[in-house]
Amino acid sequence: MVSTCLRALYLSFLMTLGSIGHLYSQDDQDALFIKSIHNQILTEGSCYAWLDHLSEEIGGRLAGSEESEIAVRYTRDVLSEYADTAYLQPCQVPYWTRGDEEVVKILNTEGNLTIDIGGLALGNSVGTGAKGIQAEVVEVKTLDEVRALGIDGINGKIVFYNRPMDPTQIRTFYAYGGAVDQRVNGPAVAAEYGAIGTIVRSMTTASDDNPHTGVTRYKEGGPQIPAIAISTNDADLLHEMLQKEPVDIYMYTNCRMVTESKLSYNVIAEIKGSTYPDEIILVGGHMDSWDVGGGAHDDGAGCVHSMQVFETLKELNYQPKRTLRCVLFMNEENGLGGGRAYAEESAANGEWHMAAIESDAGGFTPRGFSCDANDDIFPGFYRQLLKWTDLLDPYYLGLTKGGSGADISPLKSQGGLLMGFRPDSQRYFDFHHTAVDRITAVNERELKLGAAAMTSMVYLLDNYGISKGDE
Amino acid sequence: MVSTCLRALYLSFLMTLGSIGHLYSQDDQDALFIKSIHNQILTEGSCYAWLDHLSEEIGGRLAGSEESEIAVRYTRDVLSEYADTAYLQPCQVPYWTRGDEEVVKILNTEGNLTIDIGGLALGNSVGTGAKGIQAEVVEVKTLDEVRALGIDGINGKIVFYNRPMDPTQIRTFYAYGGAVDQRVNGPAVAAEYGAIGTIVRSMTTASDDNPHTGVTRYKEGGPQIPAIAISTNDADLLHEMLQKEPVDIYMYTNCRMVTESKLSYNVIAEIKGSTYPDEIILVGGHMDSWDVGGGAHDDGAGCVHSMQVFETLKELNYQPKRTLRCVLFMNEENGLGGGRAYAEESAANGEWHMAAIESDAGGFTPRGFSCDANDDIFPGFYRQLLKWTDLLDPYYLGLTKGGSGADISPLKSQGGLLMGFRPDSQRYFDFHHTAVDRITAVNERELKLGAAAMTSMVYLLDNYGISKGDE
Repeated sequence: MVSTCLRALYLSFLMTLGSIGHLYSQDDQDALFIKSIHNQILTEGSCYAWLDHLSEEIGGRLAGSEESEIAVRYTRDVLSEYADTAYLQPCQVPYWTRGDEEVVKILNTEGNLTIDIGGLALGNSVGTGAKGIQAEVVEVKTLDEVRALGIDGINGKIVFYNRPMDPTQIRTFYAYGGAVDQRVNGPAVAAEYGAIGTIVRSMTTASDDNPHTGVTRYKEGGPQIPAIAISTNDADLLHEMLQKEPVDIYMYTNCRMVTESKLSYNVIAEIKGSTYPDEIILVGGHMDSWDVGGGAHDDGAGCVHSMQVFETLKELNYQPKRTLRCVLFMNEENGLGGGRAYAEESAANGEWHMAAIESDAGGFTPRGFSCDANDDIFPGFYRQLLKWTDLLDPYYLGLTKGGSGADISPLKSQGGLLMGFRPDSQRYFDFHHTAVDRITAVNERELKLGAAAMTSMVYLLDNYGISKGDE
Repeated sequence: MVSTCLRALYLSFLMTLGSIGHLYSQDDQDALFIKSIHNQILTEGSCYAWLDHLSEEIGGRLAGSEESEIAVRYTRDVLSEYADTAYLQPCQVPYWTRGDEEVVKILNTEGNLTIDIGGLALGNSVGTGAKGIQAEVVEVKTLDEVRALGIDGINGKIVFYNRPMDPTQIRTFYAYGGAVDQRVNGPAVAAEYGAIGTIVRSMTTASDDNPHTGVTRYKEGGPQIPAIAISTNDADLLHEMLQKEPVDIYMYTNCRMVTESKLSYNVIAEIKGSTYPDEIILVGGHMDSWDVGGGAHDDGAGCVHSMQVFETLKELNYQPKRTLRCVLFMNEENGLGGGRAYAEESAANGEWHMAAIESDAGGFTPRGFSCDANDDIFPGFYRQLLKWTDLLDPYYLGLTKGGSGADISPLKSQGGLLMGFRPDSQRYFDFHHTAVDRITAVNERELKLGAAAMTSMVYLLDNYGISKGDE
């Protein structure tokens, strides 16, 4: 691009002015206020500075950890500047620790070749014992393959799950959804057939050296075996070696579940609505992250997006008609203790969340919102939202049907609208659950535009409300 | 995000299947072929490897440089694998060189403080002479401010243009268009009033230490003074110091225009159309870049996007009905010699470019295409394009009115459709014309999705054509 494009840019600019003019004539107030939201955040918004603090000063914030408690106090203190009240809501969370650095080695069976590859224990995994474990590797692509191999094929072995995420999915979350059963349930299934350990290919379409952790789940009362994620490059290497000869894996981790239940907190900030105080609009993300990296995209971004809503509405002197709540949930990653505690207390208090918006897909450039509700009332909600299309188009914000967010999903029984903020997903799994999910992976403008998208949607929901009956 | 989202993901997946099913019933062939284009590129496309070679092995490719000639031969050789013919088209370009590393110092007038800030000479700038130049700084925001200060205020001084790009513009190219007159015309205007040098704030909304070069233009026969860009952080520092006391700038560069006219080349590859060989569809980007960095986003990305169209159609055994041309233009950055030569030869041969698509906005995640044509035939074109909306939506590809690209703009007189590939623009000016425009700034999936978008549009244009008369 160079100055020869200036004429074209100028023409485009004139067209934009034309289209803004068109909006003004429809609904001056809304278009102007949404523009002022964007201007405030792009010039003065604090979300990037907050995220820098969460990711780089505090660091990874696994539920139950000291870092998570520091982050709870920090965000409560920040939010207290912009809300009527900011307080902590108790919840019970597990506390799992990684312990020492993991050791993973590939050894050929003659013992004359050893390759250190390293890895990250999966969250909730048990340890290997002090000496580690070593056994022949069985590579599989699916859980069904393990079942088909049965005890004869699996007993005493280390199972290596190596089905890649599908790179042809345009929405990378679908690719994740199509592969993550290996990580979540793979170790439990392998254990049923007598495996002594599990190695899992990392959940990313990128070819790199970063192992991706994430939760695994044992069956209640079932056998528990250690599980470690290895990078996609190392998974490809191991696969190549297995084409030639049998190989062993040695693995060591002293990770452990310290306790299944420990007191922790959601952070809640609230501004009471002036006209409809019983209609709640929630914005939120999750405070906890994995212990490696800084939890910048997952989900520091969602937290600071939500906090930015409150700062901006205060800076713009906006008095909401409905009650606004910012909720930073604890323990999304390995239990959902915070999300459940919030929904239970809300139900006990007879609350109605007219709408809840979760941001838990990273701090990337905005694409829009996914919308979810009970099937019988969804169409009416969706038609009401679509009336705002012209107001959202200038900011590239589309509305699609789809899931909202794990933390707010227990609110579905209240019959309100659940929304998920949807940024572009192409880079998300380059960083997800890794040591490189740091502030350096977050672009300041992209983060701020996400916060502006959330604030704009809150403004529209607050100003117009939505009704269960179709208008 | 964690496995508790899986149910939501699965539901979204079912909805997607539903929507694909819907497309199939409308037009199976098109939806399937566009999907196969995406699959081929996401799994086997070579564009990222080519860009790595252009950016990291060859490096910055300023018109007239040895690197630009190496890149010409490399891309011709690659394209010859996928086209009926691949050849070089002569064009005349200027050859400007940066010379030694620039020196820029801020000095307070008492001479007891000197701060080295460094900078990048603007393309086409003259040098300072071996001793450099030093003078008091006059900070301005606009060219009109220089005119208002007049000879009395400017003569013998160094003019510092310091109007930031507007961060509140959602489309960053508009912000660029609103500020870049300082760089392109600022030095010439300052020179008219007797300034001896110019310092220009870099064209980016980011606050960082990277100076951004780019073209400047002197008036024909007018005075020529040296011009250097400094980083936004350094511009802010200089501004702060000027609030307190007068300061001098010392600047040194031995950059120079080696020759105003040198032989160079566009790279052209062609596949002859089977049915309508006289209807040309062009895809292209520009081969030249600035000398610093690797020209990865600007515009190596556009080159490999265009080359990928040819690789993919060959891999899919697609025989075009119309004539497809891939053109890698030389000298977009500081002269447009390639674009003009191409249009002149095309006019002399009586060709008609039914459509031309330029990619020159980086290798970021796709947003769609901007469309341009002569006003009297544009509405008919645009209506025809909008029929493809359902086919493009699954890939987030929208169609907007707007400029296409500098290199193809001289083709407008042929009355065909001009399009610009439009990726997301938020990160573009973090890298534009800097030493950090390298392969590390490009995400492989985002780049590949851009190439798939270009290929899909070429397929639709080739398969259906567009007619000047409204259907």
